[in-house]
Amino acid sequence: MENFNTGRHISGQFNQELEAVRNHVMTMGGLVEQQLRDALLSVSDSNEELAQKVLTSDYKINRFEVAIDEECTRIIAKRQPAASDLRLIMAIIKTIADLERIGDEAEKISKVALEHFPGKKQDFLLNLENLGRLVLSTLHDTLDAFARMDFDAALKVHQNDDRIDREYEALMRQLMTYMMEDPRSIPSIMSVIWSARALERIGDRCQNICEYVIYFVKGKVVRHISEQDMDEFIS
Amino acid sequence: MENFNTGRHISGQFNQELEAVRNHVMTMGGLVEQQLRDALLSVSDSNEELAQKVLTSDYKINRFEVAIDEECTRIIAKRQPAASDLRLIMAIIKTIADLERIGDEAEKISKVALEHFPGKKQDFLLNLENLGRLVLSTLHDTLDAFARMDFDAALKVHQNDDRIDREYEALMRQLMTYMMEDPRSIPSIMSVIWSARALERIGDRCQNICEYVIYFVKGKVVRHISEQDMDEFIS
Repeated sequence: MENFNTGRHISGQFNQELEAVRNHVMTMGGLVEQQLRDALLSVSDSNEELAQKVLTSDYKINRFEVAIDEECTRIIAKRQPAASDLRLIMAIIKTIADLERIGDEAEKISKVALEHFPGKKQDFLLNLENLGRLVLSTLHDTLDAFARMDFDAALKVHQNDDRIDREYEALMRQLMTYMMEDPRSIPSIMSVIWSARALERIGDRCQNICEYVIYFVKGKVVRHISEQDMDEFIS
Repeated sequence: MENFNTGRHISGQFNQELEAVRNHVMTMGGLVEQQLRDALLSVSDSNEELAQKVLTSDYKINRFEVAIDEECTRIIAKRQPAASDLRLIMAIIKTIADLERIGDEAEKISKVALEHFPGKKQDFLLNLENLGRLVLSTLHDTLDAFARMDFDAALKVHQNDDRIDREYEALMRQLMTYMMEDPRSIPSIMSVIWSARALERIGDRCQNICEYVIYFVKGKVVRHISEQDMDEFIS
């Protein structure tokens, strides 16, 4: 775990608490990643059972959010953290909010598996799967950057969001064309559109989490800054 | 400002800091409300200029988010707040994140004003306006509940979200039917769909903010709890 010095604190107990909360975030992140993986698999395999499992498992993620949030508040009240410890707690509080919402998006995606698309597998479903794979690997890299609090890794993910946006736009154009050519397909296609949108939003939330990693490591808020300012900040 | 005792702290300076940060949140909230109002007005009046103003004003909200966030972190580090002071800071940190995203949704809504709908005013635009008015008044009530940290008001808003969801669902059915009847309208209707979705999400974010008010007043996290548990909690 680079960039991390456990044993910095006079209070070994405080170290243990910080480590514990970080571990809980990673466990929560693992659950969220599993939910997204299952949701995408349920779509590509038209597996309704797996889709239902995604829908009924979301509560676990919600519980983690509430528990970790309370843990962080308790640490602030009890340990009065400052400097990088406080930044870590702040980064965690925000990260779990985004992780919880990624879980909600995974639920939306799994609903596509409950739709029935006539005929053989449609092109747009394959493209949805491609977008899904890209977003899943982005989430994986994001959690990895968070686990190691790795500035370079976070920056790399942050800069790759354009690719998700481009694939999303291309898929949306394809879906609109499809609806125009076959208006009866509109209700089914709309559920694919919501899934595509959910994937695009997961990409945004991964960006957010990477911004918190950057904030933790560098002590600078990079949310909302212009591309030019970001380039200056990096150099 | 009921439920608020300024002058509680031995440090008058600390009181002033807490009041200042609360005022900043209210100013930010006022800006967000104005953005939503302008966005809705730009749609109902097909006012492209006003829509552009919404698009170029969002940076002000973003700046508030970053500034208030830094203010809160500074207060935690310097004042080591506990109990209700800490809950207030936590509620503020989360509220501004939701307010910032409501600003983003307002931007999306204003984009409908840049679309051109042939013929006289379509029914679905009138229904979008109705949903918009409902959501705007929900946002207003939410900010009001936050300003007074009023548990009852927050609970009332929280329980009214169903109405937004029902109007949203009805509008979506209407829009889908319209697309199926006139496939050439699909690209324009899609922008109305994104706006409707943005409004529905603003309703969700208002709910979140009300949950933070409830958390502040009662010290209990009501996120993700079941309706039954919520009823028990209230009684």
